[in-house]
Amino acid sequence: MSKVLRHFFEPRSVAVIGASKTPGKAGNEILVNLLANGYQGKIFPINPGGEEILGYPSFRSVEEIPEPIDLAVFIVPAEKTLAPLKECAKKRVPAVIIASGGYAEVDEQGKNLQEEILKVARSAGMRIIGPNTSGLTSTPVNLTTTFFPLGKVRRGPISYIAQTGNFATHTMRWINTAENFGVARVAGLGNKIDVEDSEVLEYLGEDPETQGILMYVEGFREPRRFLEAAKRVTRKKPVIILKGGRTKAGAERAFSHTASLAGNDAVLDGAFRQAGIARVRRYADLVNAAKGIAFQALPPGRSVSSLAPSGALGVVVADACESAGLQIARHSEASLKKLREISASWVTVSNPVDMSAITPVLGPVEAYRKVTEILFADEGVDVIVAILLASPGTPMESYRFLPELSRKYPRKPIYVSFTGDKPSFDEARDYLEKHSIPVFSPVEDAFEILPILCRCQELISSSSLSE
Amino acid sequence: MSKVLRHFFEPRSVAVIGASKTPGKAGNEILVNLLANGYQGKIFPINPGGEEILGYPSFRSVEEIPEPIDLAVFIVPAEKTLAPLKECAKKRVPAVIIASGGYAEVDEQGKNLQEEILKVARSAGMRIIGPNTSGLTSTPVNLTTTFFPLGKVRRGPISYIAQTGNFATHTMRWINTAENFGVARVAGLGNKIDVEDSEVLEYLGEDPETQGILMYVEGFREPRRFLEAAKRVTRKKPVIILKGGRTKAGAERAFSHTASLAGNDAVLDGAFRQAGIARVRRYADLVNAAKGIAFQALPPGRSVSSLAPSGALGVVVADACESAGLQIARHSEASLKKLREISASWVTVSNPVDMSAITPVLGPVEAYRKVTEILFADEGVDVIVAILLASPGTPMESYRFLPELSRKYPRKPIYVSFTGDKPSFDEARDYLEKHSIPVFSPVEDAFEILPILCRCQELISSSSLSE
Repeated sequence: MSKVLRHFFEPRSVAVIGASKTPGKAGNEILVNLLANGYQGKIFPINPGGEEILGYPSFRSVEEIPEPIDLAVFIVPAEKTLAPLKECAKKRVPAVIIASGGYAEVDEQGKNLQEEILKVARSAGMRIIGPNTSGLTSTPVNLTTTFFPLGKVRRGPISYIAQTGNFATHTMRWINTAENFGVARVAGLGNKIDVEDSEVLEYLGEDPETQGILMYVEGFREPRRFLEAAKRVTRKKPVIILKGGRTKAGAERAFSHTASLAGNDAVLDGAFRQAGIARVRRYADLVNAAKGIAFQALPPGRSVSSLAPSGALGVVVADACESAGLQIARHSEASLKKLREISASWVTVSNPVDMSAITPVLGPVEAYRKVTEILFADEGVDVIVAILLASPGTPMESYRFLPELSRKYPRKPIYVSFTGDKPSFDEARDYLEKHSIPVFSPVEDAFEILPILCRCQELISSSSLSE
Repeated sequence: MSKVLRHFFEPRSVAVIGASKTPGKAGNEILVNLLANGYQGKIFPINPGGEEILGYPSFRSVEEIPEPIDLAVFIVPAEKTLAPLKECAKKRVPAVIIASGGYAEVDEQGKNLQEEILKVARSAGMRIIGPNTSGLTSTPVNLTTTFFPLGKVRRGPISYIAQTGNFATHTMRWINTAENFGVARVAGLGNKIDVEDSEVLEYLGEDPETQGILMYVEGFREPRRFLEAAKRVTRKKPVIILKGGRTKAGAERAFSHTASLAGNDAVLDGAFRQAGIARVRRYADLVNAAKGIAFQALPPGRSVSSLAPSGALGVVVADACESAGLQIARHSEASLKKLREISASWVTVSNPVDMSAITPVLGPVEAYRKVTEILFADEGVDVIVAILLASPGTPMESYRFLPELSRKYPRKPIYVSFTGDKPSFDEARDYLEKHSIPVFSPVEDAFEILPILCRCQELISSSSLSE
């Protein structure tokens, strides 16, 4: 089944129906994006004028293209879709993305047009994504079909499925400019007249490029099929969903947005749980959870060890940890002994480790390094959450050892935040994330996503035990 | 009562006991900070060497100072405190901050020393803040007594009381470098042997420079007195608390940090509620809530109107709004009519307003301006949450009109977030916050603090009605 979707995510050639010479027009931006991303396959612009566009000779019709086409992207007005679509059918184009809007989301006429499109596709065994979609991105083949100015999209292990144009456009730009992790596949499914969530989920489940799948969904065309697919995929990799329309107000908006019927959210919650899907409540979590997955292993358990630069932040972290349903790890006797050796004599060593009792003894560089080494080595610790100091007075060596140390313990994730100075924070975050240590906003943000990542790992572990 | 604290927050002269010539030493940093902040009162360094420090002639003892002293800041080792303290008593210094640690937080000897200090103070009518504190900041008189490199602290309407050195140091630096709002008074109270939370709260309640009070507390020395004080202050201005140690794990840490006994958190919750105190759950909220108070009026009610650049973000915002205990405002017939006139014909106009149905008609500049004008003018709307577009392609004029428009409606707060591109977001945030429009991280962060601000306003309104 997922083989069909390879024509979408790994096409060897792309035709752009409605390509334009005019900068700023959607039919031009698609080509700009393909060029910016360095798509290596063949590109065939289709334009009635037939002139060269951005260096590519263009064709007046699909029929004129002398080679086979894997993927055709439509960016023509709704009413001009059928004729070139029939040509695609004739040419046996296996995959079509209809980017333009003006269909069922607009009026009855658009709805009828969708049905005709589907008939043409079915008769030729052609698959359709859309209409009304910002399209796909697939970094392993340097492809994006998005008509929104996107720039080069950073490659990485995260894939997104989204029932919103916003994801493949503005949010992708946000990830590209505000974050340091990268994406593998991004699918905006639009009106979902043919390809829908379950099928894409299965493809991503088998996709070696994808380590984690995050979704924004307002409604499912075939909820049962989706939950069945999720059951299989969540045994292998995290599937995390933000369900839009979980409240009454949100459900009303979702209905007018995508005609999605929300159903009972508690029932959905149970179904998600059974299918192994983890749920997030905030749009921002779709980015933060992705960062955790992209950079570190999933937490093998819920015992958290932590360090904080002050007693108060230790209290704050302990509160955040317990509120998130995690446990403050009990350090081993060996660890406690080592921690006592480097702490000021009057301090009761505990978890979170209060660094203000150790830095005066060892200095910040040695203090942070030694404590982190002790926590990594402690076998009772599943996860480390380190709150570090960002200040012009704190040497960078007090955190720059982390990537190397973390690589020695690949099964024990570490999440970092800071307190202090914004420019120093930005510098530290940039350094650490470029070396695969995720850094979160001060100070509790890591705890918003940690229980979600723990839940994903628990599902994967329990299914590998039962097999 | 609060007159006494004026010697701390508005001293005409400051003596620094333990001033040092050596850069980097705490006794030097205090003077560096006083200079950086431009303190206008007289500064008297006390140092056994008696040499000039940073341009100030220094004195060998308090006795030698030829003028009256309002505030003496101690940064000498604990065991060297008593002698100069007695000199201060003799000289009738009304206010003393003991910054150094090494007291009850360390051992029995330190505890005894604290008691002796208190005796000296009581016998002379001298008031003490500390020991073991990072001290005070008071921007209206350009004063900080902090020994942590702080730089010039931005003046503004927010005051903090914190039972943690971290607040007057690293968090203050964070606010100064990552935020655009400013502070009035910041008090780190340390071991609280004399001046404690209630008294500072009362002072800030009457302080015309303070519009909102935010606190980090692990425990109260005199909880009843504090709650009584809060009852009076919360009728006039917001009092918002992060209580450290609200979970079992946190309470254990709080006990070892400040020997605070947590008590039953549900009981505390009820007491806070009765006293009109709003509670936050995350350290980050102490910054975000402050930003809301610093820049805009408190929300007069819970009816929220919103606009979002896409249908999906409208759904996300509606979910966030209802989850936060707020209402999606019902727009008036007049507003709906105006919105319909500028929307694409096929769209059902609702709240949040879907800007993707309007920008294609009017262009982004006119679209955002007109919609925001309609929402401001609608009398059924208490608060506006606007999710805007940050992208290199979106003209700055699509948000630069907001400050002027917002000033026309001073009782109707607006909170802004963005979706899009990080550099454009940073630029827009900087512009808007410098013009008093608070901007929150994408996309739901404003909803974390909105119910807290609503609650504060409800208390103020209900007490003004009952008076």
